[in-house]
Amino acid sequence: MSNNHFHVSDLGEKKLIKRIINKLDNYESSTGKKFFKHNIGDDAALININNWKNTKNAKRTLNNKDNDERYLVASSDLLIQSKHFPKQMSYFQMGQKAITVNVSDLAAMGSNPIGILISLAVPTDLKLTYFDEIIDGILDICYKYKIPLIGGDTNEADEIIISGTALGIVDTNNTLKKSGFSNGDYIAVTGEIGLASLGFEILKEENYKIIKNELKKGKIDQKIVDLAIEKALNPTAKINEGKILGKFASSATDITDGLNSELHELHESNNQTNKLDNLGLRIYENKLAKMPNFNGIVIISKILNKNPLDIILNIGEDFEILFTSNMDKNKIKNYYKEKYSNKNFDFYIIGDINETNNVEIEYLNGKIEKLTLKGYEHFNRKIND
Amino acid sequence: MSNNHFHVSDLGEKKLIKRIINKLDNYESSTGKKFFKHNIGDDAALININNWKNTKNAKRTLNNKDNDERYLVASSDLLIQSKHFPKQMSYFQMGQKAITVNVSDLAAMGSNPIGILISLAVPTDLKLTYFDEIIDGILDICYKYKIPLIGGDTNEADEIIISGTALGIVDTNNTLKKSGFSNGDYIAVTGEIGLASLGFEILKEENYKIIKNELKKGKIDQKIVDLAIEKALNPTAKINEGKILGKFASSATDITDGLNSELHELHESNNQTNKLDNLGLRIYENKLAKMPNFNGIVIISKILNKNPLDIILNIGEDFEILFTSNMDKNKIKNYYKEKYSNKNFDFYIIGDINETNNVEIEYLNGKIEKLTLKGYEHFNRKIND
Repeated sequence: MSNNHFHVSDLGEKKLIKRIINKLDNYESSTGKKFFKHNIGDDAALININNWKNTKNAKRTLNNKDNDERYLVASSDLLIQSKHFPKQMSYFQMGQKAITVNVSDLAAMGSNPIGILISLAVPTDLKLTYFDEIIDGILDICYKYKIPLIGGDTNEADEIIISGTALGIVDTNNTLKKSGFSNGDYIAVTGEIGLASLGFEILKEENYKIIKNELKKGKIDQKIVDLAIEKALNPTAKINEGKILGKFASSATDITDGLNSELHELHESNNQTNKLDNLGLRIYENKLAKMPNFNGIVIISKILNKNPLDIILNIGEDFEILFTSNMDKNKIKNYYKEKYSNKNFDFYIIGDINETNNVEIEYLNGKIEKLTLKGYEHFNRKIND
Repeated sequence: MSNNHFHVSDLGEKKLIKRIINKLDNYESSTGKKFFKHNIGDDAALININNWKNTKNAKRTLNNKDNDERYLVASSDLLIQSKHFPKQMSYFQMGQKAITVNVSDLAAMGSNPIGILISLAVPTDLKLTYFDEIIDGILDICYKYKIPLIGGDTNEADEIIISGTALGIVDTNNTLKKSGFSNGDYIAVTGEIGLASLGFEILKEENYKIIKNELKKGKIDQKIVDLAIEKALNPTAKINEGKILGKFASSATDITDGLNSELHELHESNNQTNKLDNLGLRIYENKLAKMPNFNGIVIISKILNKNPLDIILNIGEDFEILFTSNMDKNKIKNYYKEKYSNKNFDFYIIGDINETNNVEIEYLNGKIEKLTLKGYEHFNRKIND
């Protein structure tokens, strides 16, 4: 596609990234060197750090165990005020979210955070107190995730732009990738999905009025409205869950772009890695319906003239981890409990791996349909996706 | 300064970064943990990676040499079209510059590049061919610097924003920092300074007309005009020079914000590290005047009604490395020649370290004056600066 009349919007996010990866391929074949491609991978870049030290002799001398080998994990995400921060989001929350989106990618790789760099651009006429609030939000959540702020820069811009790069470290054996699942594995998510995207809908000015009205009439539950808004404005990265899943999951990714899109990511990634198998992914509406707030999401979506499954499947922003595994659920939960002083890890099994080579959903009425990629496009993709 | 009426413009770049670092300090003292500060340092963040492997036993068993110890180096820089790219800059050059500004920070630490992540935001109506040109520029210069593109993301924005994070690795012994010089060390730069900033002046519409007129009249040299524009549009990071300086320099930083500003950075950083010494930095106009294009810069600056020393000292964008050393110049040049197949490393000695505790300049007439921070402010500072 070299036609001069095309614009980036004609391709959309995924094709733009594919275009970049193709260019990397071309560079490699023209130079005859595997220079770029070997590092382009998953939710985050993986860099083999085992050769950084002069350990050639060490390896011969020592009885090295496999789990001595580690990767450096690196992931970048850029947020722009007008695109990623709803008007109701406080400056403190903007700072928090910029860290969370980056840490979430580390979580999806099963890695331990080691540091984050933030490039912060703000308008020159931004009030100093707001600047302070952004920084306070950044530091507050960095401390929560135990990820030190190690660098960055400041810039002036017409609106607030926060770009982050999170660095982590992970044992080679515990690295979560998008490929690797087997027939019969279950598909699960680390938390309820759909709430954050519902929250963004509720926060839209025209919708907020409708919701307030319905609340007055007692037709919807204040609790779920509050929860949805909370999830939209205060997302949390599942860093501890990711670390545990590194030991138990067969594949994983974080759900920033919607469950549907990420199911396709897993499918495509697995297809590329294991070209001969016919593995497919099926999710079940009746399993989604067991999530505690499913009915609430359905009711409010309908009030807002939205398809509830579209809210749940196609929007994202939940920052939960989608993963596959064949390990007993209680075993994982107990391991988590032991490791994190009796805290609960309530994940939801929503589907399974089959041999249809499709990404599909079974509706409540038993009908099975292929899930196609549609709806809301973030136009925010990672080269590593 | 908690007054609600202040804006970020009232503080300026340096004070904003100090404000962030103070907040890190407050966080640390309130939690009692050295969580953030120990990693906030220099041109780039330094992360000790020697404890990443289970090498406790290895260390006991092996006769580890000091130079087995290495740092991971990480640096972020964000560029915004309307602030950092002159109108005459091609899309290819924008991609190149975004990589160069990040790699330059690695160079200033003496490190070897291992990978770079790029977050690219573009308007949805950007022509696809222009998008391609940006990517081609990125890949072209990545290949030149031998730094693989390992990740990143794409976004939509109202103008082009390119945020990068460069990762490198450096032997602990060869790490270049801003502090560390001694009385009597010379001060040097890895290349001529002032040309890039002159180039940016020439590229301003109103100035370009004047220059074209003077060229017609034969009053100025076409070569220097071309060179200045080339330096402004095609800056190069001195990555090999940085690696060699890691062995020979006592301190270093890259000159993005102007020589004057960076001399103060070295002074301040050294003062903080070695509180008891009174080391100062003095540069000499007669040494600056020995740079091959000094006279040309003076002539053109005056035609444009600019103070030539302001162009040379206060603007920057040359991406040269400012360093101090007491090593014989020829020894360094010969070492470079051997290492890089007979290529030349022509650096310029412009001053020396004394015990005045000042940053000062000796003019051609012998008058010595303190250099104060003034002029052009990028409002683009690194936490690591």
